Amino acid sequence: MIKKQILILTFISLVNTICWSQTDYTQFVNPMIGTSKMGHTFPGATAPFGMVQLSPQTNFQPMLKADGSYNPETYEYCAGYQHKDSTIIGFSHTNFSGTGHSDLGDFLVMPTVGELNLEPIKTKDGQKGFFSTFSHATEEAHPGYYKVDLDTYGIKAELTASDRVGFHKYTFPKSDNAHIILDLVYNVYHYDNKNVWTFIRVENDSLITGYRETKGWARTRTVYFAMAFSKPFKSYGHKKYDDIQYNGFYRKFNESENFPEMAGKDIRAYFNFDTNEGEQIDIKFALSSVSTEGALKNLKAEIPHWDFDKTKAETKAKWNKELSKIEVQTMTPEDKITFYTALYHTNLSPILYEDVDGHYRGLDQNIHTSEGFTNYTIFSLWDTYRALHPLFNITQPQRNNDMIKSMLAHHDQSVHNMLPIWSHYANENWCMIGYHATSVIADAMAKNVGDFDKNHALQASVSTSNVDYFDGIGFYKEFNYIPEDKNGSSVSKTLEYAYDDWCIAQMAKQLGNTKVEMDYLKRSTYYENLFDASIGFMRPKLANGEFKKEFDPLDTHGQGFIEGNAWNYGLYVPQNIDHMIDLMGGKERFTQHLDSLFTMELADKYIEKNEDITRDGLIGNYVHGNEPSHHVPYLYNWAGHPEKTQSRVRMITSTMYGPTVEGLCGNDDAGQMSAWYIFSSLGFYPVTPGSPNYALGSPLVEEAKIHLDNGKTLTITTKNQSQKHVYVKRVLVNGTPVKNNQISHQDIMNGGEIVFEMSKKP
Amino acid sequence: MIKKQILILTFISLVNTICWSQTDYTQFVNPMIGTSKMGHTFPGATAPFGMVQLSPQTNFQPMLKADGSYNPETYEYCAGYQHKDSTIIGFSHTNFSGTGHSDLGDFLVMPTVGELNLEPIKTKDGQKGFFSTFSHATEEAHPGYYKVDLDTYGIKAELTASDRVGFHKYTFPKSDNAHIILDLVYNVYHYDNKNVWTFIRVENDSLITGYRETKGWARTRTVYFAMAFSKPFKSYGHKKYDDIQYNGFYRKFNESENFPEMAGKDIRAYFNFDTNEGEQIDIKFALSSVSTEGALKNLKAEIPHWDFDKTKAETKAKWNKELSKIEVQTMTPEDKITFYTALYHTNLSPILYEDVDGHYRGLDQNIHTSEGFTNYTIFSLWDTYRALHPLFNITQPQRNNDMIKSMLAHHDQSVHNMLPIWSHYANENWCMIGYHATSVIADAMAKNVGDFDKNHALQASVSTSNVDYFDGIGFYKEFNYIPEDKNGSSVSKTLEYAYDDWCIAQMAKQLGNTKVEMDYLKRSTYYENLFDASIGFMRPKLANGEFKKEFDPLDTHGQGFIEGNAWNYGLYVPQNIDHMIDLMGGKERFTQHLDSLFTMELADKYIEKNEDITRDGLIGNYVHGNEPSHHVPYLYNWAGHPEKTQSRVRMITSTMYGPTVEGLCGNDDAGQMSAWYIFSSLGFYPVTPGSPNYALGSPLVEEAKIHLDNGKTLTITTKNQSQKHVYVKRVLVNGTPVKNNQISHQDIMNGGEIVFEMSKKP
Repeated sequence: MIKKQILILTFISLVNTICWSQTDYTQFVNPMIGTSKMGHTFPGATAPFGMVQLSPQTNFQPMLKADGSYNPETYEYCAGYQHKDSTIIGFSHTNFSGTGHSDLGDFLVMPTVGELNLEPIKTKDGQKGFFSTFSHATEEAHPGYYKVDLDTYGIKAELTASDRVGFHKYTFPKSDNAHIILDLVYNVYHYDNKNVWTFIRVENDSLITGYRETKGWARTRTVYFAMAFSKPFKSYGHKKYDDIQYNGFYRKFNESENFPEMAGKDIRAYFNFDTNEGEQIDIKFALSSVSTEGALKNLKAEIPHWDFDKTKAETKAKWNKELSKIEVQTMTPEDKITFYTALYHTNLSPILYEDVDGHYRGLDQNIHTSEGFTNYTIFSLWDTYRALHPLFNITQPQRNNDMIKSMLAHHDQSVHNMLPIWSHYANENWCMIGYHATSVIADAMAKNVGDFDKNHALQASVSTSNVDYFDGIGFYKEFNYIPEDKNGSSVSKTLEYAYDDWCIAQMAKQLGNTKVEMDYLKRSTYYENLFDASIGFMRPKLANGEFKKEFDPLDTHGQGFIEGNAWNYGLYVPQNIDHMIDLMGGKERFTQHLDSLFTMELADKYIEKNEDITRDGLIGNYVHGNEPSHHVPYLYNWAGHPEKTQSRVRMITSTMYGPTVEGLCGNDDAGQMSAWYIFSSLGFYPVTPGSPNYALGSPLVEEAKIHLDNGKTLTITTKNQSQKHVYVKRVLVNGTPVKNNQISHQDIMNGGEIVFEMSKKP
Repeated sequence: MIKKQILILTFISLVNTICWSQTDYTQFVNPMIGTSKMGHTFPGATAPFGMVQLSPQTNFQPMLKADGSYNPETYEYCAGYQHKDSTIIGFSHTNFSGTGHSDLGDFLVMPTVGELNLEPIKTKDGQKGFFSTFSHATEEAHPGYYKVDLDTYGIKAELTASDRVGFHKYTFPKSDNAHIILDLVYNVYHYDNKNVWTFIRVENDSLITGYRETKGWARTRTVYFAMAFSKPFKSYGHKKYDDIQYNGFYRKFNESENFPEMAGKDIRAYFNFDTNEGEQIDIKFALSSVSTEGALKNLKAEIPHWDFDKTKAETKAKWNKELSKIEVQTMTPEDKITFYTALYHTNLSPILYEDVDGHYRGLDQNIHTSEGFTNYTIFSLWDTYRALHPLFNITQPQRNNDMIKSMLAHHDQSVHNMLPIWSHYANENWCMIGYHATSVIADAMAKNVGDFDKNHALQASVSTSNVDYFDGIGFYKEFNYIPEDKNGSSVSKTLEYAYDDWCIAQMAKQLGNTKVEMDYLKRSTYYENLFDASIGFMRPKLANGEFKKEFDPLDTHGQGFIEGNAWNYGLYVPQNIDHMIDLMGGKERFTQHLDSLFTMELADKYIEKNEDITRDGLIGNYVHGNEPSHHVPYLYNWAGHPEKTQSRVRMITSTMYGPTVEGLCGNDDAGQMSAWYIFSSLGFYPVTPGSPNYALGSPLVEEAKIHLDNGKTLTITTKNQSQKHVYVKRVLVNGTPVKNNQISHQDIMNGGEIVFEMSKKP
C-alpha cells in the first residue's frame, strides 16, 4: 500500500513538474504595471537581475525650469519612462526599477531617418528634436522583450537583452539618410549635468567602444561599452556640447566627421546608413564596469551571433525558470497578472555587476575579481531588507548568498569599513538611514541560507555599526538615542539602529559570541529611550534629555522621522513587538491605535509635500506606498486581533495592487513593494527579518506551489477561498494546526502542504 | 710579444674601468642648467628616465590675465620652475623636461606651519597664499636630489626619488599647527582648467590613495597615487573648489573634515601634525597609470623602508651608471659641467611608464601588460628623432629598443593604426608634424640595434604614413606635395614626410621588400616638387600647381613652414643632400646660402612673435634654439667646406651652451638640444638618422671614452686640441684616415680609437 502511494505521488509530482515547466509564465507578466505615476518601473527588456536593462526613455521634461530651479516633475522619471507620454527620445541600457531617486540612463540609442538632427528635444531654432511620437497600441512589453513603432520615422524598434548585452533590432523604411544616434549626454535625472567625461573609439566600420563617467547619485561612476552594428555604417561623426578644445593650439583634423576618436564632456555621435524598405539594422550593445576590453569580452561571450530571436528566446527561458518557481492559482485572471508581474519585479534588482571573467570595479575604483561568488550591485537596503531579501531566501537563496558576499566585498573595499547603505555601481550614495545590510545577513543566518563567512559578516556588521561619524551613530552610542538637535530624523534612526543592532545580536548568538550578543541586545533596547509615555508616541528627544517641545505626530517633516510620522513610523520595533505594545498601553490601546491609523482622515497638508507619501498609497494614515508601514498590518497579530491583520492585508492586496499601469501605489523600490505582495498573497510575511518566523496573514491566491532550491515543493492551498472569505479560520502545516499566527522558515523549507481554511467571518 | 701586449692592454683597461667607475660623475651635473628663460628644464629629483620627476614649482603666474586672455608668461613654466622666481608653491611629481608646450604637474605637495591656508597664491581677502619664499643660496640640486629651505615656514625640504616613487623629507620647526597640503587643483599650464575629476581615500592615519583625471594636452589622462606619511596625522580635511554636491539631496556628514573619502573636480586636502623642533616628516609618494592598487604595489616594491638617504644613494648610483658611460676630459672644468649636465638631460625622457608588475594604461585606456619589453612614454618625436634617439643607439641601446617596442604597442592600440607623433601618458597629443617614429625605427635598424619585430615595424610605419586624414597625408599622396591652400605648413610637412618615407624605404630594403622600398623611395623625392628654382627656395605650392604668390622666405608664419622659414627649414632634405645642393645651384651657391644664413641680420619682426625662435638661440638666421636647423652646420661638409662645419659647430658648442642657468639657448625639447651637444662635443653628428653614417664636425672635448653595451670602449682623442684649434686636419679611425668627412656606426661599435688631429687653420 505504502509503495503504491509513493509511486502515485511520484507520478503526480512528475506530471506537475512537466506541466509547470511547460507553462509560459511570461504571458502573465505585464512590465507596464507601475509605469504610471509613482511606480517608477520600466517596461524595457532585461534578463533576470541583468546588468543591461534596456528601456525606452520618454523623459524629455525640462529638468530645470526657466528660472533654473528643479522641476518637480523630474521625480516621475526615475526609470526614464512614464506611460502618459507619447514620445520617445531613445533607448537606454541602464535603469533603476522602482527607486525613489535616480541616476543611470546610460547610452541612449535612437534610430532616425531624414535630415540629421542631434538635439533630442528641441533644436536651437525651435524645431522639433530627434524624439519620435509613438502609440501604446504599437507597444509590446514582455520579460526580455520590448517593441514599439517610432511613428515619426516609420521605424519599428525591438529590444531584447542577455545578462550583459542589449540587443536592438530596428526595421527601417527605404532611406539614403538613415541614422543611429548614440547620445552620451542623456542621463536619467540629468538636471544636474552629470557628465564628467565621455570617450569613444570607432574601432572599425561596425564596432564602437567607449565609456562615460558621471558624477550623479553615484559620485564617481564609470560605465564602459562596446557597440556592434550588423551593417557597416557609411559615415559617422559627432557633436560636442562642451567648449573643451582638442590638443591645445593644434587643430589638424576635422574631428567632427569620420574621425575615429572622440572625447569630451558632452558628446552625441551618429552613424549614417542607406536602408532599403524593411531593412533591419541590429545593434549589440555590451556593458562593463571594468573596461572597453571587458565590454568586448562580454559581447563576444554572450551573443556571438546576430540572431535576435535566439537571444530573445534564451532570455524568455531564463524568465520562465525564475517565474515558475512559484506556481499560483488565483481567483481571477487579473490576480495572476498582478502576481507574476510582482514576481518579475522582484527579479530586476540587485543587478549582476561583473564581467564574464569575474572582474568588476570595486568601491575603491580598483578592479577586483569575484572569487567564489557572483558580484551584484544596486542595494536599496532601507527598502529591500524588509521583504525582498527575505523573499530571496525562499526563491533565490543562491543569489542572496552572492548578494551578501557582494556586500562583504563592499565592506572590505570601503574606506569607512562599512557594509552598503544604498550602493550602486561601485559607489555608496548613503541614501536613507540605518545599516540594514546587517538585517539581510542576520536573516540569511537565521534561515541557514548561504555559505558566506559568518564571522567576517559579524565583524563587518560590528564595524559598520561603530562608524561614529555616520549619521548620528556616535551620538546614538553616547546618549543611547540620537538627540534631534544633534542629528535630524533622530527617532527613525534610533528605532532602525536598535532593530539592526538586534540583528547583529542574533548573528553573535548563532556564532557563540556572547559579549557581542549582550552588547548589541542592550543597544537593541535604545528605542525605549524615545517613547514618551505621556502622549503614547515615539518622540524626538534633545541632547539635554528633554523631549522636543513642539511636536506633531502626524507631520512627516521635522518631527524626528523621515518619510513617515510618529503614528506609523513610531511602530517600528520589530525586534520586540510585545514590549512596544506594553509601552503603548497594552493590547487594547494598541489595537485602537492601529484602528485609528487605518481609518483617520489625513489632512491634505500632511500629504502633498512628500513625494513618497501620495494619496494613492494611503489608507487613512497608513502609507502602503512607502516602506516604514509595511509591517504594520501584521501587528494586529501581536495585539490579539489576527482577524484585523487578515482583513487589512486582503484589503491591501486587493486594492493597492493591480494589473494596470497604475498597479503600484508607490515606488516599487527595487522590488520591495512587489515582494510585500508576493508574501502577503501567499498568506505570510517576514515582520522581523533576522528571526526565522513569518507572521500569518490572509492568502489572496487559491493555491501556490513553491518549488524550492532544496528540491522540495511547498504547496499552499486554501479551503473555502473567495473574494469575501478574507478570514483565516485555521492553518495546518502538514496537517498540524498553527498556533500564535506564525510559521517558521523550516515549515517552508520542509515542503509539503500548508492549508489555509478561509472563512467569511473573523 | 703579442700576448704581452694584450696583457698590458687588459691591465690598462681594467685600471681604467676601476677608475672611471669610482668617479662620482653626478658632481659634474648641475640640474639648474636651463632653468632660466627658455631652457624649460627642471631642477628636481628623478631617477634616470624615472616615472616620478619630483620638482619645485615656482609657477604662480596668473595663467589668465584679468581680461581672461592667456598670459604669455605662462610659456616660461613648461617645467614648473623659473630660476628668476623667489617663491615656491610646492613640489609636483610629474614634469616635462625642456618641452615647448606643457601638461602634468601632478600632485603638488607643500608643507606649512601656522594657520591653515589652502590658497596657493592669494586668499580671497587678498592675503598671501601658502607659497613660501626661498633663496637660491639654500638650494641644492643634484641628480636624484633636491633641497631648499622654505623660508616662510622655517621648513627644510629635501626630495629624492626611485623610479616610481617620490621621497620627501621635511624638517619642521616646533609647531602644534603643522600641515602637509596635497593640492590636486594645481596643474602646469593650468590656465585652461584641466581637471576632470579627482578622488582621494584616506586609507588610514598615514596612508592616502587617489587619482586625478585631466583634460589637458593629453585629452584623457588619469594618474593614480599612493601617499604614505612617516608619522600619523592628527587630523585632516579638504576643501572643494567646485559646486558639485555630494549625494544629491542627502548630506549626512561633515565631508570636509576627517571624512576619509573625497572626490570632486577641484580639491585641496590637508593633513595636520604637531611637530617638535627639527622633527622630520617624510612622505613616500608613488605613481601609477593603472590604479591606486598599482601605486601601492610600486610603493611597496621600490621603497619598503623609511631611509631617505638609502634611496638617495641608490638613485645617485643609477645616475653614475648612466653618466659614466661617457668619460670625457675637457679643456675647461666648465665644459665638463656642461657636458655631463647635457648627458643628464638626455636621460630624463622618454620616461618609464609601467608599474612594477608590467601593467600600464594604453592608448585605448585599457590596461595592458608589457611583455618582452619595458614600456615608455613622452615621445616628443619631432624633436628627438634627430639626435636623442640616435644617441640612445650608442648610450642606451636596450632602452631605445624598449622605446621602439613601446611605440609599436602604441600603434597596436591606436584607433588610427598610427605610430606616435607626440605622445604622453596614454594619449596622442598630435603636436608638431611628420611621422618621425619611422626615423627612430629606421635608425635602429640601420645600426642593428634591438630585437623588435622589424616586419611589424615596417607594417606600422606604412600604416602610419597612409592615414589620409592626418595632417595632409591624403593631399601629399594625391598631389605629390601638400598644397598650402589645402593644409598649412605645407612645405615643412612635405619635406619631413619625404624624409620619413625614405626611412620607410630603408626598412623595406633591409627586409627585402622591394615593392615598398620603391614606392617609398618615390615618395621620398616629393620635396623636389616644392623647390622653386626661380628664387632658389623651397616654397609653398597651391593645389592648382602654382607657387603661392606672396612669399617671404624669412618669415616663419604663413609661408608654408612651421617654427622655421625657407632659409633654414628649406634645407631639410637629409635623405639626399647632394641633390638638394644641385637643386640650389651647386656647391658654391649652396655655400653662399649657408654663409648668408649664419651671418645675416634678422630683423626683429621675424623674431619676437615666436616663442621657439628667440634672440638667444640665433646666429644670424640660423636658429640653434629650435630643431629644424640642427643639421644645418654639418651641411658644409657636403658642399666641400668641412672647415666651415668645424668652425660653426665649435662656435655653437662654445657659445650656445654653458654651465649656467641660462646654459640652454632654447627649449631642451626632451633632451634633443642636449643630445646635439653630446654628439657635437664628441666630433660627429647623425645628420641623416636611418643611415648608419655620422657627419664629422669638430670635437670640443680633449678626450672621450665611450663605454659601449657590447663591452667595447671607443676612445676619442684629440691632438693639438685648444680653444682656437677648431679645425680638423685629419681623423684616424683605428689608424685609418677618414675620407668624406663621415664615420659609420660600425666604426663606433668596433671600439678602439678615433683620433682628431686639430689645427688652428682650416
